[in-house]
Amino acid sequence: MPKQIDTILINIGQLLTMESSGPRAGKSMQDLHVIEDAVVGIHEQKIVFAGQKGAEAGYEADEIIDCSGRLVTPGLVDPHTHLVFGGSREKEMNLKLQGISYLDILAQGGGILSTVKDTRAASEEELLQKAHFHLQRMLSYGTTTAEVKSGYGLEKETELKQLRVAKKLHESQPVDLVSTFMGAHAIPPEYQNDPDDFLDQMLSLLPEIKEQELASFADIFTETGVFTVSQSRRYLQKAAEAGFGLKIHADEIDPLGGAELAGKLKAVSADHLVGTSDEGIKKLAEAGTIAVLLPGTTFYLGKSTYARARAMIDEGVCVSLATDFNPGSSPTENIQLIMSIAALHLKMTAEEIWHAVTVNAAYAIGKGEEAGQLKAGRSADLVIWQAPNYMYIPYHYGVNHVHQVMKNGTIVVNREGAILG
Amino acid sequence: MPKQIDTILINIGQLLTMESSGPRAGKSMQDLHVIEDAVVGIHEQKIVFAGQKGAEAGYEADEIIDCSGRLVTPGLVDPHTHLVFGGSREKEMNLKLQGISYLDILAQGGGILSTVKDTRAASEEELLQKAHFHLQRMLSYGTTTAEVKSGYGLEKETELKQLRVAKKLHESQPVDLVSTFMGAHAIPPEYQNDPDDFLDQMLSLLPEIKEQELASFADIFTETGVFTVSQSRRYLQKAAEAGFGLKIHADEIDPLGGAELAGKLKAVSADHLVGTSDEGIKKLAEAGTIAVLLPGTTFYLGKSTYARARAMIDEGVCVSLATDFNPGSSPTENIQLIMSIAALHLKMTAEEIWHAVTVNAAYAIGKGEEAGQLKAGRSADLVIWQAPNYMYIPYHYGVNHVHQVMKNGTIVVNREGAILG
Repeated sequence: MPKQIDTILINIGQLLTMESSGPRAGKSMQDLHVIEDAVVGIHEQKIVFAGQKGAEAGYEADEIIDCSGRLVTPGLVDPHTHLVFGGSREKEMNLKLQGISYLDILAQGGGILSTVKDTRAASEEELLQKAHFHLQRMLSYGTTTAEVKSGYGLEKETELKQLRVAKKLHESQPVDLVSTFMGAHAIPPEYQNDPDDFLDQMLSLLPEIKEQELASFADIFTETGVFTVSQSRRYLQKAAEAGFGLKIHADEIDPLGGAELAGKLKAVSADHLVGTSDEGIKKLAEAGTIAVLLPGTTFYLGKSTYARARAMIDEGVCVSLATDFNPGSSPTENIQLIMSIAALHLKMTAEEIWHAVTVNAAYAIGKGEEAGQLKAGRSADLVIWQAPNYMYIPYHYGVNHVHQVMKNGTIVVNREGAILG
Repeated sequence: MPKQIDTILINIGQLLTMESSGPRAGKSMQDLHVIEDAVVGIHEQKIVFAGQKGAEAGYEADEIIDCSGRLVTPGLVDPHTHLVFGGSREKEMNLKLQGISYLDILAQGGGILSTVKDTRAASEEELLQKAHFHLQRMLSYGTTTAEVKSGYGLEKETELKQLRVAKKLHESQPVDLVSTFMGAHAIPPEYQNDPDDFLDQMLSLLPEIKEQELASFADIFTETGVFTVSQSRRYLQKAAEAGFGLKIHADEIDPLGGAELAGKLKAVSADHLVGTSDEGIKKLAEAGTIAVLLPGTTFYLGKSTYARARAMIDEGVCVSLATDFNPGSSPTENIQLIMSIAALHLKMTAEEIWHAVTVNAAYAIGKGEEAGQLKAGRSADLVIWQAPNYMYIPYHYGVNHVHQVMKNGTIVVNREGAILG
């Protein structure tokens, strides 16, 4: 008697299961297991089988989805976003066009502080609606799991408001969200002369955040004009003691040693890393800290010096990619475009890129055992692409190659028949 | 008695009519007329009025479209595409990742010659279906008029096949197409030792192309390793004598003097212009030749030296923008992303960018009197954007901000309620 299951996907032209026993570092990022002419079986939101045609023998499904030769992969994971914010900063773009640097804009009260003003002023409901719109758009590009940081409050009420919005979103729509408390995102005007006191304020929120289960990670912006390495060390050590996983915005502009600190503290991830030193790269590799690169931000800031992905991979670092979706330095929800920028400007191969937006991205947010891979027992989070093979996605840039997105075994995005823009 | 018309758009948050008496050059590209709280009236495919609220007085419409504060602009014009081709070149991306230059790939028989092989092999029906898919996607990003080049045949049968496909597309779907004969796109292997003879072969096709009304323009790739300035001069002069408007792929890589030639011959447009000299920029300004810049190509080739848009605008050149959609150096249909790259890397302001993708783009393909502006008597080709103002489109990159697209007064793309990815 055949076993009855909910759904079987047939005629998959190329299946990437991304099966891995852990995060893929260095050379192993190049070993991509590609299954041609494949099938996937799904029952009660979970994967039953994912492999070569024939794996479906002995099963019968209520629903057959004919993928007609399309590519199928796990749902994508975006491990670094600032999803919850008020307002938008399109007028600032013209400031940048006049060559004013990001740090100068910050000094003039623009930049992140204008988003802080708008986020403090917005109601929880307004933040929820706006973040929901952007999150729906992320989902439509194939992102089924994402990380969301606070960091536009820089005071208790708004930081917790942002984290509550992220929690409500997690509970009310398809994309699984992991929250990061990033009160240490910038020094608010009222603390310009006493950043240490400000950090103590932010640290004082940790018990409440822990108790209300509002965040799993803590993050800090270690940069010239923001927080020093020693301030960051103190802050992150306290956060670790309070039971938070550690993340750090490291060496985005200057090579202060953020990567070295991340390695020393065994942070789960170090992000940005544009200016990271050779020593810093070594420390990341030794500690197994995942390098979350954000090439969209370098592109958006009009710069041409990108993070040294090739040196990191050669050193054995586990590399991931993210949109860094935020209103100031990377206003985009399109992780497929980030994959293209990674190929064109980080010179990562397609094989490395696919590991960077599935397996490694999931481990970078503590979801390595749940997301980023298609194997028996895991959630049936997958994308059916309007593309014949895995190279096509980073190759054909700036559009949306999603045909359908499935979350927990249910089709949540269906672009069948829509003009595919 | 109120005059009865088909449609009135109300509650337009910002209306850009782009009204201009001709192409906008230099400083005048910065003067953008923005109408807040506006209306547009449409009857029998044409604009009746487009202006401030109140302009609708005395009219009644069968259909009212409430734009709910959204931005409305003319439909976008993409003045440089290689839409009709066979195959795709995603595998080549990995070659490029190993640092092999575009000209070296050409020399190895890859690059454009692999697309020539695939285009020659494809049937007219296959080319039509594939081009239709990509064109639908262009339309979904707001492009309502576009130019299409041949140039992947490099012999009579396939060049004419491409041009016939473009003509059929023009007649069978919403986007208005203008065709350019670009047989002089590369030197096929069989003519490597005698490019002059090859150019004569291509020139011999002009009477038939003219007679079957298959193209309005002729174009040539003037570049190291392709055609010299003197070969290009001879070719273009003959094309002009045969009644074709002139276009030229000028100074894409090396400053050979393509721009100077374009000015001398009063070409309608000179395209690429990454390496153009100061002298060349002057010649373009003097001749009124429109500079069609292709920043997506520079981005895609992983380069950081972009065309000098600022110098061109300061010199009084009329600047336009295009996707350069092609399988090798710019596989994207998303002209909105080109607008973002123009802001971020060409340092063009939002005001200049809007002129570059409407008015100037239309004049660059001989459609200045029909497309790119919303004024009484013109086709009702317009976009209703999911955005509050005109700066937002280039600011928020890599996604699709179209809410609805109207062509000749009919909604042809409706993303109302769709997950806006």
